[in-house]
Amino acid sequence: MEKNNLRVPGFGRRGFLSGSSLLLTGALLGASEEMEGEPEPVAATPQDAPQTKETLLADLVTANHILQDQGVVDGYGHVSVRNPTNPNHFYISRWLAPDLVTPSDIVELDLDCVPVNGDTRKLYSERWIHSEIYRVRPDVKSIVHTHAPTVVVMGTIGEPLLPVYHMGGFIGTGLPTFDIRKSFGMTNMLINDAPKGKALAQTLADRPGALMRGHGGITVGNSIMHSVGRSVYLKINAEMHLQAGGRKIETLAPEEARLAEAGNQEFPKDWDLWKRQVMAKK
Amino acid sequence: MEKNNLRVPGFGRRGFLSGSSLLLTGALLGASEEMEGEPEPVAATPQDAPQTKETLLADLVTANHILQDQGVVDGYGHVSVRNPTNPNHFYISRWLAPDLVTPSDIVELDLDCVPVNGDTRKLYSERWIHSEIYRVRPDVKSIVHTHAPTVVVMGTIGEPLLPVYHMGGFIGTGLPTFDIRKSFGMTNMLINDAPKGKALAQTLADRPGALMRGHGGITVGNSIMHSVGRSVYLKINAEMHLQAGGRKIETLAPEEARLAEAGNQEFPKDWDLWKRQVMAKK
Amino acid sequence: MEKNNLRVPGFGRRGFLSGSSLLLTGALLGASEEMEGEPEPVAATPQDAPQTKETLLADLVTANHILQDQGVVDGYGHVSVRNPTNPNHFYISRWLAPDLVTPSDIVELDLDCVPVNGDTRKLYSERWIHSEIYRVRPDVKSIVHTHAPTVVVMGTIGEPLLPVYHMGGFIGTGLPTFDIRKSFGMTNMLINDAPKGKALAQTLADRPGALMRGHGGITVGNSIMHSVGRSVYLKINAEMHLQAGGRKIETLAPEEARLAEAGNQEFPKDWDLWKRQVMAKK
Amino acid sequence: MEKNNLRVPGFGRRGFLSGSSLLLTGALLGASEEMEGEPEPVAATPQDAPQTKETLLADLVTANHILQDQGVVDGYGHVSVRNPTNPNHFYISRWLAPDLVTPSDIVELDLDCVPVNGDTRKLYSERWIHSEIYRVRPDVKSIVHTHAPTVVVMGTIGEPLLPVYHMGGFIGTGLPTFDIRKSFGMTNMLINDAPKGKALAQTLADRPGALMRGHGGITVGNSIMHSVGRSVYLKINAEMHLQAGGRKIETLAPEEARLAEAGNQEFPKDWDLWKRQVMAKK
Repeated sequence: MEKNNLRVPGFGRRGFLSGSSLLLTGALLGASEEMEGEPEPVAATPQDAPQTKETLLADLVTANHILQDQGVVDGYGHVSVRNPTNPNHFYISRWLAPDLVTPSDIVELDLDCVPVNGDTRKLYSERWIHSEIYRVRPDVKSIVHTHAPTVVVMGTIGEPLLPVYHMGGFIGTGLPTFDIRKSFGMTNMLINDAPKGKALAQTLADRPGALMRGHGGITVGNSIMHSVGRSVYLKINAEMHLQAGGRKIETLAPEEARLAEAGNQEFPKDWDLWKRQVMAKK
Repeated sequence: MEKNNLRVPGFGRRGFLSGSSLLLTGALLGASEEMEGEPEPVAATPQDAPQTKETLLADLVTANHILQDQGVVDGYGHVSVRNPTNPNHFYISRWLAPDLVTPSDIVELDLDCVPVNGDTRKLYSERWIHSEIYRVRPDVKSIVHTHAPTVVVMGTIGEPLLPVYHMGGFIGTGLPTFDIRKSFGMTNMLINDAPKGKALAQTLADRPGALMRGHGGITVGNSIMHSVGRSVYLKINAEMHLQAGGRKIETLAPEEARLAEAGNQEFPKDWDLWKRQVMAKK
Repeated sequence: MEKNNLRVPGFGRRGFLSGSSLLLTGALLGASEEMEGEPEPVAATPQDAPQTKETLLADLVTANHILQDQGVVDGYGHVSVRNPTNPNHFYISRWLAPDLVTPSDIVELDLDCVPVNGDTRKLYSERWIHSEIYRVRPDVKSIVHTHAPTVVVMGTIGEPLLPVYHMGGFIGTGLPTFDIRKSFGMTNMLINDAPKGKALAQTLADRPGALMRGHGGITVGNSIMHSVGRSVYLKINAEMHLQAGGRKIETLAPEEARLAEAGNQEFPKDWDLWKRQVMAKK
Repeated sequence: MEKNNLRVPGFGRRGFLSGSSLLLTGALLGASEEMEGEPEPVAATPQDAPQTKETLLADLVTANHILQDQGVVDGYGHVSVRNPTNPNHFYISRWLAPDLVTPSDIVELDLDCVPVNGDTRKLYSERWIHSEIYRVRPDVKSIVHTHAPTVVVMGTIGEPLLPVYHMGGFIGTGLPTFDIRKSFGMTNMLINDAPKGKALAQTLADRPGALMRGHGGITVGNSIMHSVGRSVYLKINAEMHLQAGGRKIETLAPEEARLAEAGNQEFPKDWDLWKRQVMAKK
């Protein structure tokens, strides 16, 4: 069982936290879906103390397993996290199916996707999804790339994906759809170089995620827990949209979505549950 | 394995019973789905003898696990039971994902959601769903709050959810849909204070459940087993409605629904099966 | 592991066989889906030797577990088999969820549903589904009653369920739908007495199964394996129909269905697979 | 755990490789979905060295288990591989549900489906699907026959199945649908002799797969890994098509599909993941 790092600070767009750390902080500050505000008698930890690299990478490994268990990724798809001590670097697994990822598989890349430590192992060709978004989005600390079927479908039917319920609040007034053909003509659909990554980042703009026509989607967040939570609820929200079978859905009003998102920061209770589920299967 | 409390009586809207007790009583009285009436030679137990607090809380814990296993709740959602010895109190878990709940996590609240025993642990912000319904519905002994996707969808497409089959009989001529916007304008969709709880209870009226637009739903019952059974069949019935894909469904006539419900009181066989399934996974 | 009874005969509408026995016979005679005809060098067994009561009841127990594992039944639903030595009796579990059934739970009833051996244990109130079909269908040796959701839905949308593929061949030109309201007005939908059983049997006529509006369905067969196989493929075929979402389906022509069914007698390979799957979970 | 045969070469349409061998080669050559090209420091192996019969049959066994685990086959369906040392022979299991297949169950047949070694065990009646395609398609090294429900449905609704996303690139501009009635009138739908096999092969032409109306489908490939990967993505792509519920789908342009397919040769990462999943269940 992973040992939770209790030296964990605040949360928000300034620093970022591991899932388990944030859960604790969430408990401290009431930063759960339910914006409690009630005090919680647990051991206090200093606010905004950076977590260790070791626990960060442990959370990245867990994220890979959670995403596979939750059906967000399968043999394809990936998750990364920005290096908290050097914003021009990020961590991601080497080329490997997510369920296999262990801490020794994590590589550190710069924003040109060059391995920082001379690592020569094979990398995901779509690493430019990550580098180019980190380049232009200083607020983003973690990114998930998904091939979940319902997310793929939503990128192809020309209907906006809107929040069906409060857990999808971050979807707001909709997510942009990146269509690689617009800028690059006929391709194999992959974001396998810097120009394509830049184009995707441009489509993403300041939004929490984007659909990718004929490919899948991405979500971004303040932390691993945040991007992972958003990717799961993106998938669930897409499923709900398709279950409605073309009927008109009374989706959240923009202000409801905004308020709901504010109450769902980071999804700590989900992370904890999903982590338990993957650990039970080891 | 839980030890069944055999000191358990009849059933009905006056007292209430743990799932396992009710099963036995159901066997005694033929109060199964199938309104048998045949005598069953088992040890007699006194009618309406209250069960112990210990077995009640054990059933509440089991209910949490069943609901998670059945997909009625995930990281979110909750179940409560009214205190049989003090109708102004109810039991619910502290703020925790349902699969983690153990007897020591159960707190006792009054109808203002104040912990009875000075418990200072964090609570569900939506505890007012429970308190305000117990306040105005003396017949209700247990409440389940769900985010099951098909139930969420049914609350957004403007079509009445009617009983597709006899196990959904309690749905009767339909369930009310609570839309928080009508009374509270733009919110984060959560029932996180007494006024919102009262509004939901008002929409619920005397019905067995309600949908909550953009959020999920609730079911109520005579007992834990009753509210839990209803929540599962609400989900299944919603799935069936959506599987029909917009076609006209020949749903139960109101009288059929009423008669079917009378035969499905408490769902004892289901509870037993679902409990076995969660215990097998421990 | 169950010991296969090798004293097993032919197959067809005259006698009937346990699943495993039939598999062997199927291998002998090529009576598989694939109408092989190739000789199989296994130990020969005498044709039409009746199996033992012990192996028959073991197969009935296995059928209960298979049906629950395959989603044909849940807490509700049941399977029975006619007594090969007395056609006016049949075997069925006492009132119990199918996953719990063991050989000692099997009761023997006559066609008035009176226990043959003075058994006083509680019975399924819908046992008249079985008795009344056995009464008028001498060819039927086993019956399954299902609440599978897609089967329920197909009984309510007014579209004929036709064979989408060859494994559904037995559906032929469609199955009748029993609507209890036509003969009995408003009821709780249950077949809980002889008149209702007779009405259902009348609707079933000489067909391999029937839908029951607002309730579920039934399948019948030459053997346990046959009725069980048909119930699973009824469910799958209903799923396919609903997946097509209202589009026109090019279903099997009546002659194709007839020929396909002839090649799928008894589903021996399926029974064996499904039995392996339930045994692996014990 | 299977011992990987490292004596493995390049890939392409000339020779063919076991799944694990190809993975390694894929790593060597960057022949993954993501067309990497980066060097990978692993033990070099000679290009195009044929693997052993033992490892080939081990991969065929694994393929059977993967296909059952992935829902491509159930009690029915099969996979074969051409003999790399004699193109007029192929390997396939004897008549057996795929989950049971072990190396000793593999038989070697010639293109008239005659067992090469005098094996007298019962065979799949649809072995002519395999023999007749091998006969006219020298490029094909492996074939999968599926009854996956969504694939069955796609063969009956008269809508072309097109690639919804890049993993379905091999579908190209669509797959042919074989309707047995056109050449053979009313049948039991089975490809149970050489003429029917030849007709199916004629419909397949030079395509990577075909749908079979009222029956299921087939995929072919350069290797076991290739045909298996295609069968899984055929199923997923069919699911996506049906999830779109009749809406217009912006499918891949023909050139996008072609380019995407070039990048997805052989699906090595998938094979490895699926193999891990079946081995974990043993």
